[in-house]
Amino acid sequence: MSYLITLEGVEGSGKSTLINYVKDFLEYRGKSIVVTREPGGIDIAEQIRSVILDKKNTKMDGRTEALLYAAARRQHLVEKIIPSLNEDKIVLCDRFIDSSLAYQGYARGLGIDEVLSINEFAIGNFMPNLTLYLDLDPEVGLSRIRKNKEREVNRLDLEEMNFHNKVKEGYEEVLVKFPNRIVRIDANQEIENVFSEIKKVLIDKIMW
Amino acid sequence: MSYLITLEGVEGSGKSTLINYVKDFLEYRGKSIVVTREPGGIDIAEQIRSVILDKKNTKMDGRTEALLYAAARRQHLVEKIIPSLNEDKIVLCDRFIDSSLAYQGYARGLGIDEVLSINEFAIGNFMPNLTLYLDLDPEVGLSRIRKNKEREVNRLDLEEMNFHNKVKEGYEEVLVKFPNRIVRIDANQEIENVFSEIKKVLIDKIMW
Repeated sequence: MSYLITLEGVEGSGKSTLINYVKDFLEYRGKSIVVTREPGGIDIAEQIRSVILDKKNTKMDGRTEALLYAAARRQHLVEKIIPSLNEDKIVLCDRFIDSSLAYQGYARGLGIDEVLSINEFAIGNFMPNLTLYLDLDPEVGLSRIRKNKEREVNRLDLEEMNFHNKVKEGYEEVLVKFPNRIVRIDANQEIENVFSEIKKVLIDKIMW
Repeated sequence: MSYLITLEGVEGSGKSTLINYVKDFLEYRGKSIVVTREPGGIDIAEQIRSVILDKKNTKMDGRTEALLYAAARRQHLVEKIIPSLNEDKIVLCDRFIDSSLAYQGYARGLGIDEVLSINEFAIGNFMPNLTLYLDLDPEVGLSRIRKNKEREVNRLDLEEMNFHNKVKEGYEEVLVKFPNRIVRIDANQEIENVFSEIKKVLIDKIMW
């Protein structure tokens, strides 16, 4: 059975650790898993990402940025996610469409519905089957990141606290919009407890 | 008075020659003109264009391409067209939204309305005030290009004849969609006669 599961949340919410827990859990149950994240090592998507992240591109408009993310998402979908789903694999993706809705649609003020429309052009029917939203106070997330010295600080980590609070508000809006697809996970607890919650959702929603 | 005029047509329809005729004609009438073309020398848009045109990117999906063109269009609009319009200039642009509708929307089969929607996200209210569509048999256009040895042959010139015929069909569809904005000019005649037709349209539509 092919299945697309995405993980979402503010910076420092534990996505990259938990995605590997989910992978191990599902593999133990005999599933074939692909773990990926945008831009997922796809050459064209990496080229697009380097335009987005180039620090010299200070004049980049918010809508240009949103269109570039959608373009990179499309290419990653076509070259990596769809071929994996066609091989009956479960794809776990660290961030996907909801990041664009929360970050650019809400936090940057472009409008969730507007950013949704260009992403629907990009991904068509390949909306995630299930999205795990790791709900965490952004302040806690950022303090976790600062303690983790191995993790490289990126451009988004340096945004004002106000921006990160808006991202969380954005995720809340997105949750209201897709109540069946997105499941809220309380990430404000020990990681083992977060993972226990996730396991219940996987068993409940996917019902093996 | 600010005004955005775009020129559209198949390869070899005479856009780059005629845009300069139009410039001279309007400047002679005391107007302040900016001539541009996408990506218009805007650094971010050039970076995006180099991703689109890179011959190594053979795996590029049609929707990725359409999103990248829309992203480059947005940045060109924000950095060059809007500031010129704000200075009360008339902007003449060689190709704009209708090229995406005809080439990607129709000829590549993505759907005119779908490609329109991502371009509306990109340009918002800045639809052209007037579009001059140079209507020409694509076969004639390509034979003109082959005779002009100074013009560098690009990737699109090398597409099959079938593709260029579809682009013309696409422009016909776009014309039906925007009958008030787009004016058809018969480009299948001597360039002086083509320009005479254009002058009549400018006098009639802009009414100085």
